[in-house]
Formats: sequence, structure tokens, C-alpha cells
Amino acid sequence: MYNRPLFFISNDDGYYAKGIRSLINMLRTMADLVVVAPDSARSGASCSITSTVPLQLTLRKEEEGLIVYSCNGSPVDCIKLGLAEVCPRKPDKVIAGINYGDNASVNAHYSGTMGIVFEGCMKGISSVAFSLCNIDSNASFSSWASPIIAITKKVLGEGLPKQTCLNVNIPDVGSCKGIKVCRMTYGEWSKEFVKRLNPRGYPYYWLTGEYTNCEPDADDTDRWALANGYIAITPTQIDVTAYELLNKMKSWTF
Amino acid sequence: MYNRPLFFISNDDGYYAKGIRSLINMLRTMADLVVVAPDSARSGASCSITSTVPLQLTLRKEEEGLIVYSCNGSPVDCIKLGLAEVCPRKPDKVIAGINYGDNASVNAHYSGTMGIVFEGCMKGISSVAFSLCNIDSNASFSSWASPIIAITKKVLGEGLPKQTCLNVNIPDVGSCKGIKVCRMTYGEWSKEFVKRLNPRGYPYYWLTGEYTNCEPDADDTDRWALANGYIAITPTQIDVTAYELLNKMKSWTF
Repeated sequence: MYNRPLFFISNDDGYYAKGIRSLINMLRTMADLVVVAPDSARSGASCSITSTVPLQLTLRKEEEGLIVYSCNGSPVDCIKLGLAEVCPRKPDKVIAGINYGDNASVNAHYSGTMGIVFEGCMKGISSVAFSLCNIDSNASFSSWASPIIAITKKVLGEGLPKQTCLNVNIPDVGSCKGIKVCRMTYGEWSKEFVKRLNPRGYPYYWLTGEYTNCEPDADDTDRWALANGYIAITPTQIDVTAYELLNKMKSWTF
Repeated sequence: MYNRPLFFISNDDGYYAKGIRSLINMLRTMADLVVVAPDSARSGASCSITSTVPLQLTLRKEEEGLIVYSCNGSPVDCIKLGLAEVCPRKPDKVIAGINYGDNASVNAHYSGTMGIVFEGCMKGISSVAFSLCNIDSNASFSSWASPIIAITKKVLGEGLPKQTCLNVNIPDVGSCKGIKVCRMTYGEWSKEFVKRLNPRGYPYYWLTGEYTNCEPDADDTDRWALANGYIAITPTQIDVTAYELLNKMKSWTF
């Protein structure tokens, strides 16, 4: 019915970020693209939504097979509004990124990039997030076109089960050793604040932190794959029920 | 070593909300309380974090066994900063709520209340979120003291496995039939925007929506328990790996 697939694209670094512009260039040849992305950086936005402020769309670009809007909301607002108001039909795929910095391990919970693909799969669309383990604004995204296109084509062909999506993280190396399908690493953040005093002597705090891989010897995790030069694909699901604990709690009395 | 347990308390409705004040009153008799909560409502904040704006704490109350701060950040910022800078020691428990409105089913992903307990269990602390299926600002929280205290005491005694927490939702009924331990319902939001025109004729959008339970006949879900007059406890985990898909993808070639 349609000659070309339709992809919805967003990110959490803003519509003008180098990562999303690289992604658009990579995917234009294989699909028509609808892009709705935040008007400025929304790193760490998680699955947050905006219900107390009205949302607005601003047209940024319209070309054959490509339309780009910015939105004043969160990444999840962008995809919700993009699917409801901008896409001419249900997209074949949702692609998020390419993010500056990794979203492996517990970072998946804080990530606005992952928020987009959680929402995409809640809407029944195969969704993939791409992140590069490099927070330099001059990071080279374009050199990763080949695996990004390969993974995208594979998912377009195979599809993904309901309520699942992919969290793809790319190592910060010249060339990678291949692709590993992984589980999420159990890791922890610590030393998360830098305390400073304002000119009146009152304290304020910058959120920062050190990440620790709590299972450094496990070789089936996303952090292991990245540390060893592989692209890490972590299949991810919406259902957060702790089934083992659920069974245990059936014997609890209150 | 310490005579009384220490609980860390937060919410996403703001430090002055009726729900958190009710929770404080319920739990003061059983523990010392450190409260760090947002300075205003942050509904839908999910696990979002703030790294581009410095965070500040404001002391709001200090009494025997109770200290209350507000913070200009998200719910997760509040717990991160509260644990790092306010708590005299690692708390025995993190309690979030009582939230106006339910956080069952997929709402767990958008919820700032759930963000707090996700963060609590990432920090290795038994964490429980309480939400009431009523968004009226005059909702009666205090009538639920008995089950809230019972669940809190039970978790204090039993503990929770690493990387798990509890999502407790209370039905909007006069008296409930009991407590059910449940899985997360597969549900979907639709009709999520109301479109309006500003005085200049440009459109803007309010996020709203209709929730559909996609498995209304299943009797083991949190939405079923709530619809049938039970308190729903959904044991919840940090690990979002889709293990079934992971096994299937091992045979994929890229």
C-alpha cells in the first residue's frame, strides 16, 4: 500500500543535536521519516510526561520524505504528540537517538532516549534506541552507519514481540568487534553530588556521580560487551513485575 | 544500635501535599523520618534527574524524630540528595506517597512516586510506593492508615530482595476486601491530547487520555484487584531485560 516504510524518530538531546541529524541521514534512504524532538536538551528525562503545561509543535524542516518538528515537552511528550498529531499513519518503527553517552545498565531508567522506545513499544510499534558511549559534542556518529542500518533492517524484517524494545549501545572505539545480545548489568551510582556555596554562603548541589559495575566478571552483560569493544543490544521489556518475589509474597499475611 | 528505624519519605505531589502529610502522621509512631520532597507538584516525573540546574534544599520543619526539606528537583533528585546530604545514616526503608491517583499498570513507568522507589531499591534499600486511586485534593488518605502501617511493618520485618520494590495501589472505595499480590496489567493509553487554539490561532495541546485494560478478564493483575475492591501490591523490579527475546535473538545474524 505504501512504497516505503515510515519511521518515527526522536531523541533527548534536542532536534538540532548532531546525533539525531546523523541518524536522519543514515535512515533517509530506507524510509520516510517523521521527526518530533525536544526543542532543547532533555537528558535524564526518563519516561516523564508533561500535564501541567500545554505542548506546542514548531515546524523546522519539510522535504521529500522528511518532516521535522520541535516540541517544548519531554521526549515521551514528543512521541505521544508526534504519533497523535504529526504521523500520517502508524509508523513501522520508532528509532531514538543517537544519544550522546551510554544508556546501558541502570542508566536505562533515567534515559529520555529509552523513554521514547518504552513509549513506542507501549503503542505497539517496534522500537530501537541507539546510544554512543561518548559525551563529546563532536563525537563521530556517522562512522557507525553500517551497524545502525543493519540492526534497523533486521528489526524491520523480524519485528519485535509485544511490549519489548531494543536498547542498543555503541562502544567508544575506532572499530568494534561485533554485536552482542546482552542482559542489563546490575550497577550502582555513588558520589552523586558536588556541593558548592552561592555568593551568600548557601549550599547548592550539582548532580554528577561515579558508576560501578556490581558484576564486573559476568560476560553476558551490556557493560561487559561495551568494555570489550562490542556493540551491546539489550532486549528490554515494559513489564517490571518481579515474578519471583510475587510467588514468594503469596505466602505473606498482613 | 539505634532505638528506632529510620525511614526516608518523598513523593511527587510536593512536600505540602495532603498525601505525604498523612503518610508522615501514619509512620511517625514507628520510625524516625527524613522527608525530602519536591517544592511543587512533579506528577509524571518518572525516574527523571536534573543535571543542568543546581539543586537546593529548603528546611521546612524540624521536630523530634522528623525533619522535612523541600527541593527544587525531581522526585529522584530528592531521594538522591536526601540520602547523600540529609540522612544521618542509610535509612531502613524508603516510602513514597501517598500519591493522588493510581500508579498501577503502565502508569508505573510515568510515575514520579515509582521513580522514588526505583531509586531506593537501586540504593539497596527496601522501598514501597503507596498510591490512592483518587485524584481529588480532598481525598481521604487517613482512613487507609491501618493497611499502610501493616504493609510497612511486614516489609520492615521480611525485607525485599535486591533490586525489587513494591508498588501498592489502594482502591477508591469506602472499605476494601483485602490485599492482593498482583502482576502489572498490560494496558494502553489513547486519545491523549486535547487540541486548542491560542488567541493568535496557533494550536497547543494538553496531555490527557483514556486508559484501556488490554486484559480485562485476567484476575491476577493490579487493575483487576483495584476494580474488584482490593489493595493491589505489585512486586516490581529494576531489571528490564526481556530474557525470552534475548534467547530468541541469539540466533539473529546482522
